[in-house]
Amino acid sequence: MRTSHRHRSEGDTDRIQAEISLGPLAGYVGFMLRRIQTTVFSDFIASLGELDLRPAQYSLLEVIDANPGLRQSDAAAALGIQKANFVALVNELERRALVQRRRSTADRRSYSLHLQARGRRLLEAARDRHDAQESRLRALLGAQDRDRLLALLNRLADVS
Amino acid sequence: MRTSHRHRSEGDTDRIQAEISLGPLAGYVGFMLRRIQTTVFSDFIASLGELDLRPAQYSLLEVIDANPGLRQSDAAAALGIQKANFVALVNELERRALVQRRRSTADRRSYSLHLQARGRRLLEAARDRHDAQESRLRALLGAQDRDRLLALLNRLADVS
Repeated sequence: MRTSHRHRSEGDTDRIQAEISLGPLAGYVGFMLRRIQTTVFSDFIASLGELDLRPAQYSLLEVIDANPGLRQSDAAAALGIQKANFVALVNELERRALVQRRRSTADRRSYSLHLQARGRRLLEAARDRHDAQESRLRALLGAQDRDRLLALLNRLADVS
Repeated sequence: MRTSHRHRSEGDTDRIQAEISLGPLAGYVGFMLRRIQTTVFSDFIASLGELDLRPAQYSLLEVIDANPGLRQSDAAAALGIQKANFVALVNELERRALVQRRRSTADRRSYSLHLQARGRRLLEAARDRHDAQESRLRALLGAQDRDRLLALLNRLADVS
């Protein structure tokens, strides 16, 4: 295998990848989840990047839209983001006038999160990109297998 | 929903996560792949950490084991790691006497990668952790659905 590769050009990565064995790695759900997720995610990062939005920012806009006025700490927990990182995330969205943080009237120590009009427009544009990617995944798998994959992934939510 | 949360303690994250809606996000394969992969990966990172090994290092040991003497550039391509990062990765494994880099006799500009005895022992210990995680995933899904998930993931390898 190695000798035939000796003078290969840089552009031949697809062929290289097909020829080099991943060994037992290819048989692990854990490894393949990582590998496939990385590919799918890169594609999504690129399409969101055109909107100057990162995936974590987009997810937060979605969660605020689904739970208007939710507590900042609840949003962080729902998205599995650590408190310090989450505060920086909200700060940036607030600075860009996408999200508004209001002190809770019920509990003065906490903040509730709200979408601004500008945030809603950006969310809609980002969701279009997410939808477009999902359509590509559905086309690749077929609708039935796509639903099956989603169901299987959901069953792994309790792992660890 | 919000009012019942007002005086909740910090330890209640499980309950919080169940109550806050992810909105449309939960219906996207892209988002759920990311979410589940993050959980599964964290668990694996922790178990490898006990061996002072990161997932990328473990993957490289597996690929060298499956393709002894492979070219450094081919290993980088197979794992989808950028050249600069890959060189740093190999440097560290070489410094720890896990991997040996040898100048190729056929092409003096390239290096071939080999496991050292110490690298093989560490690989075996790491693979045991990977196997243990895979067993937990299999137990959670059942053997048949685990195989189905792996097959579905493989079909997404060509996305983008």
